[in-house]
Amino acid sequence: MIQTKGYAAQSPTSDLAPWSFERREVGPHDVQIDILFCGVCHSDLHQIKNEWFPGIFPMVPGHEIVGRISQVGGHVRKFQVGQLAGVGCLVDSCQVCENCQADLEQYCLEGATQTYNALDRSGQPTYGGYSTTIVVREEFVVGVSDKLDLAAVAPLLCAGITTYSPLKYWGVGAGHKLAVVGLGGLGHMGVKWGVAFGAEVTVLSTSPAKEADAKALGAHHFVVTKDEEQLKAVQGSFDFILDTVAADHDVPMYLTLLKTGGTHILVGAPPKPLEIPAFALIPGRKSVSGSTIGGIAETQEMLDFAAEHNIVSDIELINIQDITQAYERMVKGDVRYRFVIDIASL
Amino acid sequence: MIQTKGYAAQSPTSDLAPWSFERREVGPHDVQIDILFCGVCHSDLHQIKNEWFPGIFPMVPGHEIVGRISQVGGHVRKFQVGQLAGVGCLVDSCQVCENCQADLEQYCLEGATQTYNALDRSGQPTYGGYSTTIVVREEFVVGVSDKLDLAAVAPLLCAGITTYSPLKYWGVGAGHKLAVVGLGGLGHMGVKWGVAFGAEVTVLSTSPAKEADAKALGAHHFVVTKDEEQLKAVQGSFDFILDTVAADHDVPMYLTLLKTGGTHILVGAPPKPLEIPAFALIPGRKSVSGSTIGGIAETQEMLDFAAEHNIVSDIELINIQDITQAYERMVKGDVRYRFVIDIASL
Repeated sequence: MIQTKGYAAQSPTSDLAPWSFERREVGPHDVQIDILFCGVCHSDLHQIKNEWFPGIFPMVPGHEIVGRISQVGGHVRKFQVGQLAGVGCLVDSCQVCENCQADLEQYCLEGATQTYNALDRSGQPTYGGYSTTIVVREEFVVGVSDKLDLAAVAPLLCAGITTYSPLKYWGVGAGHKLAVVGLGGLGHMGVKWGVAFGAEVTVLSTSPAKEADAKALGAHHFVVTKDEEQLKAVQGSFDFILDTVAADHDVPMYLTLLKTGGTHILVGAPPKPLEIPAFALIPGRKSVSGSTIGGIAETQEMLDFAAEHNIVSDIELINIQDITQAYERMVKGDVRYRFVIDIASL
Repeated sequence: MIQTKGYAAQSPTSDLAPWSFERREVGPHDVQIDILFCGVCHSDLHQIKNEWFPGIFPMVPGHEIVGRISQVGGHVRKFQVGQLAGVGCLVDSCQVCENCQADLEQYCLEGATQTYNALDRSGQPTYGGYSTTIVVREEFVVGVSDKLDLAAVAPLLCAGITTYSPLKYWGVGAGHKLAVVGLGGLGHMGVKWGVAFGAEVTVLSTSPAKEADAKALGAHHFVVTKDEEQLKAVQGSFDFILDTVAADHDVPMYLTLLKTGGTHILVGAPPKPLEIPAFALIPGRKSVSGSTIGGIAETQEMLDFAAEHNIVSDIELINIQDITQAYERMVKGDVRYRFVIDIASL
């Protein structure tokens, strides 16, 4: 077994604290990655606090992992020791179902294995990237370019792919007007991808204070949704709305901003059901759709695209000892736009 | 002016009764159609009872109109006196907006002019097909084949196109599993189109009694949604669900029956907003979408397809004097599958 240092929550009521645990030995199809950086996702906090479902404790969160390969199994073909690599939200799936065969492991019909707070296919708990090293089967490891700022690559593994995948799936690009709702970890990546794909990008925000930031990220337009005149001016104007907001909000209001045939894409999950009048969809042939992360091949495609176009997340690098304060700031939306843990501090 | 006999509601509390009114003279771009048959749509009753919005009275309902052309204006090019023709839910639109230019008059950005219970572009009320004759501008008239049972063609102008259009738009066909919810005027046409387009069609119904009918219409499978075993067997199995139900119902339950990437298409409009949990859409990249009728070119395409494939509505022909009883039966769902008025009885 591989001795590993990490930060874990021992229960839903305890803060993260140092914890030592064991990873499995590197099997023939496994890759061991010594972790350099791990992004901090809001879902890390939801899960250690049991806000979604009863978790598996002790829990080591983290699914935006970048590091260097320190060991590979005998049958590993794609990776070599010394290469940079990444791991996202998934570390396994059935690999035989219709969706896995179609490179959609995120929609594995048996249920993919989450990187932490899950039981793997042998029944052992998975532990995430707030730790020194991780062992993952080759098929769920992606290669990372050394051209990019590694710390800033980490959030691509969740926030990046969660916004890249739907924009690719719905073919968002040149000639399209894309609105992004929620300028956080996901939203700021949505802006960057949308701009890179050639779309005309508008950030919709309740806060006028975010305009300069939105423009700095590349957004072409900024609309304060509380300003009725500004809102009126964009009625029926967007082909797509990428909605990254995880709090309850007025989705039907946003539907009025879509063109005929427009699609409102949810990547954030508000706790209460959306209330959608049929007449918000029928008279404009509109859609409300959802999407989650991306498949492994698509995650690799995204990382290659990021390297080619020099796209990374905007981050604040922290030491792991500061994680609790970072969570407090994250809850207030006080982060531009993702905290990333420097695992060297562990 | 053209003297016209019809059946009208004088107020939201009065039954339909004979009423004489005037149609405009045939202008240079107009076609006059002597009406032979008019289908009875549930929306006729909703509108004369003011159930959707305050109506314009006296109101002559009817937007599933088939008849013979009796007069054409001097500039009419597409039609001649003596031809069979149809008129659906629309008699005008701006014809210049982006949607009208794209043959999507049903989504006219100025608002299309409804066949009845609307004001036309000169401010005069429109009167529908429960009447002896109608004058409509050429662009909103469609040609009808003499190969088909004319009375049974009438419902294609609303129920037919409302189900044809979304199946074409979403490309439903061979290799797809399509479920149809609600086996009424719309649903029975959805089954016929789905089968004609090559999809594998399942009727989902709360009532086991409808199985024989569903199969007779061509459905390949029938599922009683109240039977948990039957429901379980079709979890995650449909590419598309065509939902024709206009009463409140449990849409999230139907979403569980969609495959990854599946689309739930609303063509009926339940009165209460749908309550859609984000997690009913996100983990399967699913969509809830709406669609209404079709454009004029697509309506013509549908009628040509119907003639080629010998597809019409299943109907019960009634005299106009029996309209109130027909409404009573329609409300109970006691019609297979559309009442059509023989206008000769007027």
